[in-house]
Amino acid sequence: MDFLNMLGLIAGVLTTAAFLPQVVKTWRSRSAKDLSLGMFLMFVVGVVLWLVYGILTNNIPIIFTNGLTLTLASTLLYFKLVFK
Amino acid sequence: MDFLNMLGLIAGVLTTAAFLPQVVKTWRSRSAKDLSLGMFLMFVVGVVLWLVYGILTNNIPIIFTNGLTLTLASTLLYFKLVFK
Repeated sequence: MDFLNMLGLIAGVLTTAAFLPQVVKTWRSRSAKDLSLGMFLMFVVGVVLWLVYGILTNNIPIIFTNGLTLTLASTLLYFKLVFK
Repeated sequence: MDFLNMLGLIAGVLTTAAFLPQVVKTWRSRSAKDLSLGMFLMFVVGVVLWLVYGILTNNIPIIFTNGLTLTLASTLLYFKLVFK
């Protein structure tokens, strides 16, 4: 793998995996007061559109990273709705 | 602009602009207790790498969206550090 692909891969892993510590924190604290509902609504819709874009253009990295991000971001949206 | 470019553009605008309501909420409430430091640290580093990737590949949409996201996400990282 060349340098540019490696750089893009690391960048994608970081911006995707970043949601994991937030999921763990919110699950443990059962508190989502400071999270913005607007942020997670917009983010989840945006990631769904990225996923559709990836499927239509048959772009495996876009499908894979946005599939993972969708799982984590929609979990946070659910936490925001149930934990308050 | 064809359908696919329009779809990618809307997806990019949503996942970028999503951070704005969180910035406004955290600024108003002066409370960042429920935000994960790990999330924003990883996210900011990942977006910096995306920006470097965009500059090295001369990809204007990647530079533009990640430049904006970096501004918003690093503002939230700063809020997390100062508001507690």
